Amino acid sequence: MAPSPVRLFVTGGTFDKKYNELDGSLFFEDTHLPEMLRLGRCGLELSVRTLMMINSLEMTAADRALIVEQCRSAAESRIVITHGTDTMVETALVLSDAFPASGHKTILLTGAMVPYAFGSSDGLFNLGSALSFVQVLPPGVYIAMNGKYFPSGRVRKNRETGVFEEF
Amino acid sequence: MAPSPVRLFVTGGTFDKKYNELDGSLFFEDTHLPEMLRLGRCGLELSVRTLMMINSLEMTAADRALIVEQCRSAAESRIVITHGTDTMVETALVLSDAFPASGHKTILLTGAMVPYAFGSSDGLFNLGSALSFVQVLPPGVYIAMNGKYFPSGRVRKNRETGVFEEF
Amino acid sequence: MAPSPVRLFVTGGTFDKKYNELDGSLFFEDTHLPEMLRLGRCGLELSVRTLMMINSLEMTAADRALIVEQCRSAAESRIVITHGTDTMVETALVLSDAFPASGHKTILLTGAMVPYAFGSSDGLFNLGSALSFVQVLPPGVYIAMNGKYFPSGRVRKNRETGVFEEF
Amino acid sequence: MAPSPVRLFVTGGTFDKKYNELDGSLFFEDTHLPEMLRLGRCGLELSVRTLMMINSLEMTAADRALIVEQCRSAAESRIVITHGTDTMVETALVLSDAFPASGHKTILLTGAMVPYAFGSSDGLFNLGSALSFVQVLPPGVYIAMNGKYFPSGRVRKNRETGVFEEF
Repeated sequence: MAPSPVRLFVTGGTFDKKYNELDGSLFFEDTHLPEMLRLGRCGLELSVRTLMMINSLEMTAADRALIVEQCRSAAESRIVITHGTDTMVETALVLSDAFPASGHKTILLTGAMVPYAFGSSDGLFNLGSALSFVQVLPPGVYIAMNGKYFPSGRVRKNRETGVFEEF
Repeated sequence: MAPSPVRLFVTGGTFDKKYNELDGSLFFEDTHLPEMLRLGRCGLELSVRTLMMINSLEMTAADRALIVEQCRSAAESRIVITHGTDTMVETALVLSDAFPASGHKTILLTGAMVPYAFGSSDGLFNLGSALSFVQVLPPGVYIAMNGKYFPSGRVRKNRETGVFEEF
Repeated sequence: MAPSPVRLFVTGGTFDKKYNELDGSLFFEDTHLPEMLRLGRCGLELSVRTLMMINSLEMTAADRALIVEQCRSAAESRIVITHGTDTMVETALVLSDAFPASGHKTILLTGAMVPYAFGSSDGLFNLGSALSFVQVLPPGVYIAMNGKYFPSGRVRKNRETGVFEEF
Repeated sequence: MAPSPVRLFVTGGTFDKKYNELDGSLFFEDTHLPEMLRLGRCGLELSVRTLMMINSLEMTAADRALIVEQCRSAAESRIVITHGTDTMVETALVLSDAFPASGHKTILLTGAMVPYAFGSSDGLFNLGSALSFVQVLPPGVYIAMNGKYFPSGRVRKNRETGVFEEF
């Protein structure tokens, strides 16, 4: 029994930040997700689509509506979304209104504390984690960070420690 | 509801190979698992124990008996074992005799195709994957590789491609 | 004949930037120079001293006076200074007033376009370069970047390309 | 005054070893030198040519004759050769018969203790070092390792420590 196909939506976040060597700033360009999947020798049937490439502090209600709409129209019932950690909890709440536990879609949001390009990222670990949880968790919206999964609505990011916590 | 504590047994394998710069050979020394868990910002309640540090081609029946015994005496019901990929399937079979699906232990074996120390490893991805599957899969013995999980007894490593396949 | 001892002064710059995972900013903490020298298996008799740890855009006349003073009081006649690339040319000019070609000190400034911690730095290459030039160039003040050396006063950083050029 | 053009000959060695993930062995494929030069933002006028791609323990007299011949026919008077460290001293001796200090070619051999692909190599440091020494040292044959240069005939590799020493 092959695993169900998974849809992977990219929205940006620390995952995909790069270093601009001309002015020393951090910026977004192309996503590193395909390279990370290759590095992880990921064998899942997986289609990747970039929805936006932004810092999640700048994500608007319209951006979130677009994410909901894309999840709705995806043929796959299993969806992973890469997202900045600063407002991941907020986006998860918006998604959980549209995709309740009584539905048939399992949606995992994940992110990174350190850019993948900076060589010391938690991104590869989190990506492996989110792609695994999404295959086995029941329908609903979750966050996968720090090796754990959290049902949306019961999780916050601790701003002092950078760690996600259940409450 | 905090996740169940997880026991992590280290047996060596490509995961932990190092490069000997004096003679150009590959060898084992200390495990990189604690460093990898730190890098992944893993927040699970997790205790790590090194059982052996060997190439899995050299693993004996006595070594496998030791692994079974350690899984049996572990207080945790959720166990991840890092293991060389060459004989991971064989060890999974031995474990599944001792820990059937009707039991209460969930055991995941995982490994790496490229040493973590070589900077381009799939190990971090696989570790995130195995630690996630172990939290949600029902009792039994599984292999986590290539972003998938495989029930023991229904999986082989394709020697030509290095990829794990269900059959 | 053993090579002359070398003094290495650290002033910060991109070389030593780190990523703050709590707010996504870049900042300075400890220098990576000792780790880089270890990685390069550098066998030179070398003493490292951190003079400041700043972005070179914020370097003041007083900071430059301190660098001159430290070069003057150093017992070694061969000195390498790590420095942000944005004002490296300016500091080299200040130093060349104090340490002319007719003197007996050879001073090399070097830097990096990408932080060492970001895993893809030119810093290790430039460090190997500066430590080599400093052993063989005659007295005077130079910049070592892009695999070349430039006498102070005949070099500028091209802001569009990030490359150092002789003029 | 632009720096003289440099010829870079690649012969293999630890510099260019890769990890074969199917059988766990180390092997040679393409050289990493162009990538390393890009990473180092090297701006020298430089032409790279691969002469062979071997472990230096397997280098024959015919291989060394080929290296001598290629150095002789190179238009450039400044040449860097990447080479395995195990027999680098021997090749330097052969070269120094053909290219004495009274000649007009400056030849630097360099290598690495750890493969570049393994993410923790001294190769980038040594490459920056050799490319710098070659621009300023007088004619003759030298080895550049550990941040130092050694005239051929006065250097050995310490097999216990992996460090190059003058004698």
